[in-house]
Amino acid sequence: MLKSALNFSHELLDEIVVEGDFVVDATMGRGNDTLKLARLVGESGRVLAFDVQVKAFEQTKFRLEEAKVLERVCLKLEGHENVGKYLEKNIRAAIFNLGYLPGSDKSVITRAQTTIRAVKSLMEHLCSGGRIILVVYHGHSGGSVEKNALLEFMDEISPEKFQVLQYQFVNQENSPPFLLAIEKK
Amino acid sequence: MLKSALNFSHELLDEIVVEGDFVVDATMGRGNDTLKLARLVGESGRVLAFDVQVKAFEQTKFRLEEAKVLERVCLKLEGHENVGKYLEKNIRAAIFNLGYLPGSDKSVITRAQTTIRAVKSLMEHLCSGGRIILVVYHGHSGGSVEKNALLEFMDEISPEKFQVLQYQFVNQENSPPFLLAIEKK
Repeated sequence: MLKSALNFSHELLDEIVVEGDFVVDATMGRGNDTLKLARLVGESGRVLAFDVQVKAFEQTKFRLEEAKVLERVCLKLEGHENVGKYLEKNIRAAIFNLGYLPGSDKSVITRAQTTIRAVKSLMEHLCSGGRIILVVYHGHSGGSVEKNALLEFMDEISPEKFQVLQYQFVNQENSPPFLLAIEKK
Repeated sequence: MLKSALNFSHELLDEIVVEGDFVVDATMGRGNDTLKLARLVGESGRVLAFDVQVKAFEQTKFRLEEAKVLERVCLKLEGHENVGKYLEKNIRAAIFNLGYLPGSDKSVITRAQTTIRAVKSLMEHLCSGGRIILVVYHGHSGGSVEKNALLEFMDEISPEKFQVLQYQFVNQENSPPFLLAIEKK
């Protein structure tokens, strides 16, 4: 089966993240990607992870403790638009799952302005060959506004410095998520 | 590095085509994909390959002979819109490289009407899990007409029976090729 945008995002991480890397999970959510990244970077690597919701923070912390990898992760209960202040060295990868936290308040959603601010900060601190990956859920109220602003932003990224890939299913109903990947040359 | 549309097309073939399969190269061109498919299907498999240009036909035949795989391939010096009459059993995969033959007459190009006719025939004979992959070069004269017609066609494919993936770089100059993949459920 052709990979879903979510599965393809994991493949794009697996291809580049190695032991000792510094990476960012911009949207903890249920902690899936935070845990995945913590395993990929190993004991000597570091993950910086963000979420504005206590529920996401607590659930992610619990899962990392359970997997005995919490010490590799720095969890921030704040918006990812503040990521710049924590980036002392370059990152190999960052991942976003945009939209709302499944099973939670659907009015708490990621928004174009803060998402793009975070992406810009991450682009300034990306290793050569590093990737910023966004899985864009946009079927909810407010989702298409963020989607359109993001696509406009991607279109204007310098082709000299970055490649930008879009991976999407085009004939499906119910607005399936699509993927954007920014890779530094 | 993120895979180019061309490299990704090869990955999508590698994932599904196995020894003994029946597959189609709808555009021989320089024979790259015909040769690749002949190797993937092995001695017991069959490749059916099309091109309207003698130069493409001859070059592909020469490469297959050289690689000692010609007997697995049925080469047709005719348009891929006729593929239906040769499809007695279901195919695992088909590939198109749309545009013109590199290093040849740029006025001889693939066109939406015949491309779509071929795709429709192939869709009727696709195995479950089988894929029709199109690498769409569209920077040449006439390329955008074919591109737009194809995207419209893809958009209307039944989501119950098929998934349609689009894989494209969004911030590059010079109209880089993009990929479309139709997978039967």
